[in-house]
Amino acid sequence: MGKSNLDLVGELDKFPYYDDNPAFYAAHLKKHHAFKVNGCDAVLGYILNSVVAKFNWPTEHWAVDSTRQTVTLTTAADATPEQRSAVIAATLEAEAKRGTFEVLKGWRNELYAVYAPGGKFLLGMERCATPLFGVVSYGVHGTCYVEDEQGLHLWVPRRSKTKQTYPGMLDNSVAGGMSTTERPFECFVREASEEASLPEDIVKATTKSVGCISYFYVRDSRAGGETDLLQPEVEYIYDMKLSRDIVPKPSDNEVEEFKLYTVEETKRALANGEFKPNCAIVLIDFFIRHGILTPENEPDYFEILTRMHRRFEFPTASHFAN
Amino acid sequence: MGKSNLDLVGELDKFPYYDDNPAFYAAHLKKHHAFKVNGCDAVLGYILNSVVAKFNWPTEHWAVDSTRQTVTLTTAADATPEQRSAVIAATLEAEAKRGTFEVLKGWRNELYAVYAPGGKFLLGMERCATPLFGVVSYGVHGTCYVEDEQGLHLWVPRRSKTKQTYPGMLDNSVAGGMSTTERPFECFVREASEEASLPEDIVKATTKSVGCISYFYVRDSRAGGETDLLQPEVEYIYDMKLSRDIVPKPSDNEVEEFKLYTVEETKRALANGEFKPNCAIVLIDFFIRHGILTPENEPDYFEILTRMHRRFEFPTASHFAN
Repeated sequence: MGKSNLDLVGELDKFPYYDDNPAFYAAHLKKHHAFKVNGCDAVLGYILNSVVAKFNWPTEHWAVDSTRQTVTLTTAADATPEQRSAVIAATLEAEAKRGTFEVLKGWRNELYAVYAPGGKFLLGMERCATPLFGVVSYGVHGTCYVEDEQGLHLWVPRRSKTKQTYPGMLDNSVAGGMSTTERPFECFVREASEEASLPEDIVKATTKSVGCISYFYVRDSRAGGETDLLQPEVEYIYDMKLSRDIVPKPSDNEVEEFKLYTVEETKRALANGEFKPNCAIVLIDFFIRHGILTPENEPDYFEILTRMHRRFEFPTASHFAN
Repeated sequence: MGKSNLDLVGELDKFPYYDDNPAFYAAHLKKHHAFKVNGCDAVLGYILNSVVAKFNWPTEHWAVDSTRQTVTLTTAADATPEQRSAVIAATLEAEAKRGTFEVLKGWRNELYAVYAPGGKFLLGMERCATPLFGVVSYGVHGTCYVEDEQGLHLWVPRRSKTKQTYPGMLDNSVAGGMSTTERPFECFVREASEEASLPEDIVKATTKSVGCISYFYVRDSRAGGETDLLQPEVEYIYDMKLSRDIVPKPSDNEVEEFKLYTVEETKRALANGEFKPNCAIVLIDFFIRHGILTPENEPDYFEILTRMHRRFEFPTASHFAN
């Protein structure tokens, strides 16, 4: 017996739900401090108590309240995002030098955005540090597929065996994280070129925005670094219907090869746990939207759909281009 | 300024969320009793305290605990669904005769299903009574559309002015409630024939299952009968791509006419509040899946997607056909 689709969703959406067991949920929350920023009422993420204890929080910029279990960035209430980001960068660089946290060894020089209520940009934070603060991160995932008289086939890449995270696992055709300055589709076009060698004009002509998925991930050993760090994520989803003559190819050393999978081959690889956890969910969403998984053939249809569209207790981005 | 898409979602998904304000949520819950069935641990729905007070609960079959705020059907733990359904029917018929509740005047002789954890069928309940118990109900909604060189057009029916609920409002091409014995696609085929005069073979050849939406509705005056009754709903969603020569037509007196709307006309009617509330959300979901609403043009993209896929604190159905 392989993994069910709900098993796969459950491996990704792992943070408990209040409704399932209020007492357990409250006890679990107690293992974390709330991450806050002066001038913003909202909780922005949850930091493991063990992380709070190991961190060196410079008192001129940070206030740790161990009774209320909060860690607050104390920059002025009217500070600019740049000012907040600079303080966070200095704190994180010092920790990286001290070598306190495994995850900071994966420093990428890439800023991820944290938002205030209303989707307002609040600050940027080095990508590899976001799981330490448990803030929401954003990415794009897309499925390239061929649908013709030979049926439906999906382009499935295998991650390079030397990749830092999830080496050798199967991936989505196109996937990547969104840095502070990017909008979703712009990010998708860049990733499609970088990871699948697909030219911009083909991507723009064939890609359809089809929704987003969200889940509250709790990192395990496969993600690398400290375990139990929180990683609530939003992934904007794209479908890309390609004609059979357009073939995605690796263009950097992150992808080993692309192969065209049938639906049955993809389902088998899912059940075998061969896909990177969040990529599995993107494919389950694809199968639901394309009528391959239905209420009649998927026993956990409703539970899967709600858990892959999890609402967060944290403010989230608006990428509205006004 | 018309209604935003998030306004429309908010009119439908109205029950508060714990995370938004735990104190408010707890106070709001206190206005309800939990509906339970002997032999099943789960809460199956919320009954307004004012409804509990007006109801005549025969003590041989019902236990009202005003301290714990529960109403429990006390049939034997190993009772059959038929036995539970019979007791509920007798209780409801007596109330209908007494004329206690407005909503029971809409008696339809149609049973809706209530499920135990794991999607097990627990009991059937007269359709018009389900909002009194706040149990989850299930339906099917589908959008018939034409997509050709003239662009994308949607088939939009107007509800008859004599309909009991939401008279004269715009509707989805095909929509209806699922009774106890039906599976979603089977229900959809029936509704497409009854409401849009679409023959079974065309429906089966052109319909794609594309997901489900869910929301926790609180009834207002437009729904008819008592207000503030709870109606958590799951709607299985279908897309039906039709060629231009296939024209849906009213076949009963529930629909006045079908008209082919452009995307812009549909958006305007949405903003004007012309659609029945849950039908508006089905169209927003359609627009998201078809790349018409995107993260870049819809400021509330993420919030909309999570709220139209609400997870419930109640057990839900599995329509798995094993």
